[in-house]
Amino acid sequence: MTTQTAFLDHNSTTALKPQVLEAMLPWLTQPTGNPTSRHVFGRNAREALELARKQIAACVGVQASQVVFTSGGTEANNFAIKGITANLSPSQLLISGIEHPCVTRPAQSLAWHDWKVATIGVDSQGVIDLAQAEQALSARTGLVSAMLANNETGAIQPVAELAQLAKAHGALLHTDAVQAFGKIDVNMSALGVHAMTISSHKIGGPIGVGALIVDKRVDIAPLLHGGGQERGLRSGTENVAGIIGFAQAAQLAMQSMASRHTTVKQLRDQLESGLNRLGAVIFAQQAERLPNTSFFAIPNIEGETLVTALDKVGFAVASGSACSSDSTEPSHVLLAMGITPDLARGAVRVSLSDSNTSEEITQFLAALQQQVQRLKGLNAVAA
Amino acid sequence: MTTQTAFLDHNSTTALKPQVLEAMLPWLTQPTGNPTSRHVFGRNAREALELARKQIAACVGVQASQVVFTSGGTEANNFAIKGITANLSPSQLLISGIEHPCVTRPAQSLAWHDWKVATIGVDSQGVIDLAQAEQALSARTGLVSAMLANNETGAIQPVAELAQLAKAHGALLHTDAVQAFGKIDVNMSALGVHAMTISSHKIGGPIGVGALIVDKRVDIAPLLHGGGQERGLRSGTENVAGIIGFAQAAQLAMQSMASRHTTVKQLRDQLESGLNRLGAVIFAQQAERLPNTSFFAIPNIEGETLVTALDKVGFAVASGSACSSDSTEPSHVLLAMGITPDLARGAVRVSLSDSNTSEEITQFLAALQQQVQRLKGLNAVAA
Repeated sequence: MTTQTAFLDHNSTTALKPQVLEAMLPWLTQPTGNPTSRHVFGRNAREALELARKQIAACVGVQASQVVFTSGGTEANNFAIKGITANLSPSQLLISGIEHPCVTRPAQSLAWHDWKVATIGVDSQGVIDLAQAEQALSARTGLVSAMLANNETGAIQPVAELAQLAKAHGALLHTDAVQAFGKIDVNMSALGVHAMTISSHKIGGPIGVGALIVDKRVDIAPLLHGGGQERGLRSGTENVAGIIGFAQAAQLAMQSMASRHTTVKQLRDQLESGLNRLGAVIFAQQAERLPNTSFFAIPNIEGETLVTALDKVGFAVASGSACSSDSTEPSHVLLAMGITPDLARGAVRVSLSDSNTSEEITQFLAALQQQVQRLKGLNAVAA
Repeated sequence: MTTQTAFLDHNSTTALKPQVLEAMLPWLTQPTGNPTSRHVFGRNAREALELARKQIAACVGVQASQVVFTSGGTEANNFAIKGITANLSPSQLLISGIEHPCVTRPAQSLAWHDWKVATIGVDSQGVIDLAQAEQALSARTGLVSAMLANNETGAIQPVAELAQLAKAHGALLHTDAVQAFGKIDVNMSALGVHAMTISSHKIGGPIGVGALIVDKRVDIAPLLHGGGQERGLRSGTENVAGIIGFAQAAQLAMQSMASRHTTVKQLRDQLESGLNRLGAVIFAQQAERLPNTSFFAIPNIEGETLVTALDKVGFAVASGSACSSDSTEPSHVLLAMGITPDLARGAVRVSLSDSNTSEEITQFLAALQQQVQRLKGLNAVAA
């Protein structure tokens, strides 16, 4: 709740945009119905909910009836992995080596349901190896899951190409587009995927809302059974205010995408020029990346230590995936890229938004240099 | 969003209390961190989240570490049924005949995992038959699930007695306390249950938040896998603002419970006196009930028709469970009580809060009488 610290960790979560709160407030201040109720309160809630569904659908190039609202990206990814495989006979489930834990762990949970989980590797820039994917697809494969942009490196993945390969081998493809959505153009029809996860709180919307967009030809089993909401695919009273906030945030993100891209790209260029001068290794720098993300390490300095030191002097950054539980293991994404564990332990992630300024970057670089010098001094004493 | 209609459907959802919104607003207007992040924004979010957990725990007489936050009652019930049975060898799953679909449908989904689902009947007042339960427990039973108060009739169930029976037979007991929580005293330790579901939006908190309270000796498998939040039991970024709102609503509900009980009980007595004069059959009237709930039928008049007619003249009531999908089937709760399908089709539910007034009840009864006379006239013409 402090405002003195510069927030440079927008891939972990984002502040609610004022226009989003404005759109939500009528549903938080006036009597609201359960969208299942048939009286006027219920019908009004239903109408607002269905408008939000159309707005979200338009943002990703699908029909409203394909949007299944969930409690967030984690639920949507669990729903996709467990719900699609539940209606297929067990075979191979193929995931990339750089997926978020909310894809890898649901995948692992299927192992005792006779599914065989296999991993597609990535190259040194953190990009999925399509040749390896094609080879893996020679084994009978029910589902492939590959993220659209990596949350740690920002590297954008060849999901459209992978979807074509999957189709040619009779497999379905799910993509976790949580980090890509709102930062780059995400059109589900153009990608040709069968299911896609998006989330609200990464784009200035409220936490606790997301969606799985599902191709109508995909037979998916619900994860949450009950009252039959969301066409029977996701039971539970719909979070009307949250969903309206999500739709508003998505629309704002679409409107500002081009200008935001330019702004954050300039800030990141400024950042990475400075990082180069400090001798940092920038991961996935040769890959096509999200414009806001920079993942780097200063050799021989622990990322955790640096994050803690930077926090003390007013800069909020991440050491790896902020979405996973406390763990001092080096990033699985970096290890998949062939980065040594030693260097990977140095990883620091800066993720920007257009609320950040060039001045903040200048100050951040100065603080980083100071902390690096201090820590190198400590290392020298210790050695 | 209209305020001209009297809202008499508080068991379906409730308006957010102003004090709840006030507690949530700092988390919706200022930069907020992901509680997993280690920087100051993340730590502040974590601290607020853990305070809310303590507050919820205190409301139900448990330790904070027993509270697992979910996206609502439906997720918590799915988590309980699927998560507890996942770590037991298949046997009998016993549920009452009056459970919400978000208990019955997860239970049915276990059938192909070799679990046998059996149902405990209720008496004519909608109260679980303990003798029948004991008989059913003679078959090896892993889990019993029985709600604490029924959402349709308001009938309070002998869950503490059932928990003792279950324990004596080596079975675990889960209770869905969604409708009871905030309306009557709910103490998990006193009930002696192993898992308990509560929800936020039934008590003036936001939609999209709930919790499963779990006895530490119960080995429960997660439903949502991922980053390992909630001690690994429920992954997904914690809905900080929503959880803070839930805790605030729960505390307010505890503070006002006694006075609210008196107020809504008086309103319901006024209502039911009038209903008796109109020849209504009041369901579960001899049972110990939630003080706010009245479920009744006017013989030979369809509940759906009455609800629609009352909505047009400014009264929002429900025809049955507002939480289930569109269905013209008579209430399964009433059928379980031995009510004839014909009478059950007449069911109308009025569920009050202390925001309702005696004047509203007077006006409602007048409107009901008018609609009943009109519909009886139509029936007479049709006959």
